Amino acid sequence: MKQYQHPTIDQITLTGVLHALSDPVRLNFVQCLANLMCEQPCGSIPTPVAKSTMSHHLRVLREAGIVYIRTEGTQSLTSLRLDELSTKFPGLLESVLKAALEESAADPAK
Amino acid sequence: MKQYQHPTIDQITLTGVLHALSDPVRLNFVQCLANLMCEQPCGSIPTPVAKSTMSHHLRVLREAGIVYIRTEGTQSLTSLRLDELSTKFPGLLESVLKAALEESAADPAK
Repeated sequence: MKQYQHPTIDQITLTGVLHALSDPVRLNFVQCLANLMCEQPCGSIPTPVAKSTMSHHLRVLREAGIVYIRTEGTQSLTSLRLDELSTKFPGLLESVLKAALEESAADPAK
Repeated sequence: MKQYQHPTIDQITLTGVLHALSDPVRLNFVQCLANLMCEQPCGSIPTPVAKSTMSHHLRVLREAGIVYIRTEGTQSLTSLRLDELSTKFPGLLESVLKAALEESAADPAK
């Protein structure tokens, strides 16, 4: 069974988090995960990119400490590390998600 | 006299802002500008990189809509677009700066 490596809370950096969220596909994926509020099988959230590209994006999010990925049987399940991120950088992810929501409301084409 | 192009508030994107802030040198420069609270001559804020590298970083910050650069005589003066950013993404820059401060307080080597 594939085991994924995750940074500890001490290893999570602000610039790493900001970089991971600075891509529209990754930011949209994090928005969807936050809205669904529970872990999701990889592939259950529709994305506009190929599966291999999405694997790369998930790796960036995992290595930045934003998502946790675990395997269960043949499935990989992804969840937001919301509590840990809120402990490390209080209010940060919330303000990014709020800004993303406001931006997409102002321009639904984005 | 060199004229700098700046995005309008409508052209500023969340992912552009996050990307610009995701580099340690740029983030540290923005922190210094925020602390100084007024426009600064380019070169007055110490940075650990060569002048040409800093020019690139300033361009990224300017094109993302984070800083405003104007020339006065032979000087280029840089300021944060704090009011416009606060209008576009309320609370975002503040939460990033707060997280940066907390991170450097927790690990002064960063």
